[in-house]
Amino acid sequence: MLRPMSLIVTGTIGIDTIQTPDGQEREGVLGGSGVYFAAAASFFAPTRLVAVVGEDWPDEHRAALATFAGVDASGLETRAGSKTFRWGGRYQDNMDHRDTLFTELGVLEEAPPTVPENFRDSSIVFLANGHPATQGAFLDQLPGCKLSVVDTMDLWIDIAKPDLETLLGRVDGLVLNYDEAEKFTGRRNTITAGKKLLEYGPRFVVIKKGEHGAILVHRDGVSALPAYPAEVVVDPTGAGDSFAGGMLGYIAAHEVDGDPGAFEVIHRAMAYGTVIASFNIDAFTLERVLTLTSEEIEARLAEFKRMVRVE
Amino acid sequence: MLRPMSLIVTGTIGIDTIQTPDGQEREGVLGGSGVYFAAAASFFAPTRLVAVVGEDWPDEHRAALATFAGVDASGLETRAGSKTFRWGGRYQDNMDHRDTLFTELGVLEEAPPTVPENFRDSSIVFLANGHPATQGAFLDQLPGCKLSVVDTMDLWIDIAKPDLETLLGRVDGLVLNYDEAEKFTGRRNTITAGKKLLEYGPRFVVIKKGEHGAILVHRDGVSALPAYPAEVVVDPTGAGDSFAGGMLGYIAAHEVDGDPGAFEVIHRAMAYGTVIASFNIDAFTLERVLTLTSEEIEARLAEFKRMVRVE
Repeated sequence: MLRPMSLIVTGTIGIDTIQTPDGQEREGVLGGSGVYFAAAASFFAPTRLVAVVGEDWPDEHRAALATFAGVDASGLETRAGSKTFRWGGRYQDNMDHRDTLFTELGVLEEAPPTVPENFRDSSIVFLANGHPATQGAFLDQLPGCKLSVVDTMDLWIDIAKPDLETLLGRVDGLVLNYDEAEKFTGRRNTITAGKKLLEYGPRFVVIKKGEHGAILVHRDGVSALPAYPAEVVVDPTGAGDSFAGGMLGYIAAHEVDGDPGAFEVIHRAMAYGTVIASFNIDAFTLERVLTLTSEEIEARLAEFKRMVRVE
Repeated sequence: MLRPMSLIVTGTIGIDTIQTPDGQEREGVLGGSGVYFAAAASFFAPTRLVAVVGEDWPDEHRAALATFAGVDASGLETRAGSKTFRWGGRYQDNMDHRDTLFTELGVLEEAPPTVPENFRDSSIVFLANGHPATQGAFLDQLPGCKLSVVDTMDLWIDIAKPDLETLLGRVDGLVLNYDEAEKFTGRRNTITAGKKLLEYGPRFVVIKKGEHGAILVHRDGVSALPAYPAEVVVDPTGAGDSFAGGMLGYIAAHEVDGDPGAFEVIHRAMAYGTVIASFNIDAFTLERVLTLTSEEIEARLAEFKRMVRVE
């Protein structure tokens, strides 16, 4: 196999508190979009993580992150006198929706991290959920970018839509949830919403529907995949970022010679994202992913491919 | 190709009134579960329709049904002095839910139709939504049945659950909606709900999720398919019955020598159902299906197979 393309992500590192409907709780666990993405992607390709934590970031979280050999955390800034981002959420009975219990922004209210000099040649870029202006400023520091994909959330659609629209004119792909696509476009039909989003400039939009799978709306076509049929959903936190990590990790590893944003590539990448996300939801926080092996991923991927195939 | 297996359906024939969120209305149009199923199935295999109408059934509905050359309507009873079943529904904005405007049961309150003597050798049987005791009595008249599939709805789960449980012990397959599976089992997770339903006896359960596709929970495995990504949804009425019609029509035509209830067969059949349902929702009532050609079905089927395939 060829040497993978360099993959970089910027996102949050969080200290999370998670409550599930069965009364279980995990307090002060490792979380954040950057962590979930990087952990998932690292199964396929070395992944550069750029993020900021405060001086309260626990040593055991640093150690847990270090168990992912493929994650290059040298771009992780520990900021003196600052506090790590903290988030608490409680899932509703159906696991589809969650209520935010508290948010302590900490370092997220301060200056964003900068891209270390030795990361500026990165080819594949994922901008995890964040303010679209900050996401854009991060992209400015990556002149070697060949494929850029951005995630967003309802907050930015509410308070920074013009910035988001500008950013969409600069990136190759957008990954967002079903209800966010509707909120952004006012179109409930997923395909119509996706096509509307393409008008802002990206080459493709991946619309995530959780347990109902994902839809790809690409300039060159439309496709859909179901989710892996999971009987046990312990904690959906980070499923979307794991999904994106699996997608871009696959692309970085396997599409070195090709067009990393081609319709067929993104479709295939969605299957990898689906499989990683299916492991992620199987236990609290990163617990399942921490023990995951490449063999387990390959086995489930083969099962998933067989499952959706129609002869 | 071998001669298709004989396929029979019993279900309603309705005079429908349908309102869509954009203010359009169709009054007094051809509808009913038996009609939608038979029309869809008839693209693949001759389909015997057993149902009752009143003497008010319009000649133009009889003529429309007759345009489906594959539908054998000789088992259609026109009952003197009785009224045809009438139903009116209004779709909500999101097209996911509908409100019933009125229901005039008419012949549905009277004796059910009996199976004509020359239909008693039927191999593949679909019992469209109806009282489970009546569905069971219909099945009693079909000693040559090789594959029986039943549909149901929330009404029967509410008022006739014991009858429904008994019926599930006699049939090979159950087809029902997402929310009905949850209502029946109290399990929200689709796979868990499907496995619970298998405990009543059927070999497989197909759980329909509308725009989110379908899940197969079979004694021999689990699979999932997305819906065909439709940008235009004019009228979802009958989509579920068309889906079942496409499934069983395919099985009757293609699985003559095999095991018609095998996991791989039902999975493949779901793709045929998905494609027929995607045409059905494209226009009011049966308007689109009335002009549908085998070439259009084959083309969309090929597109759908390519779309879900992961290389």
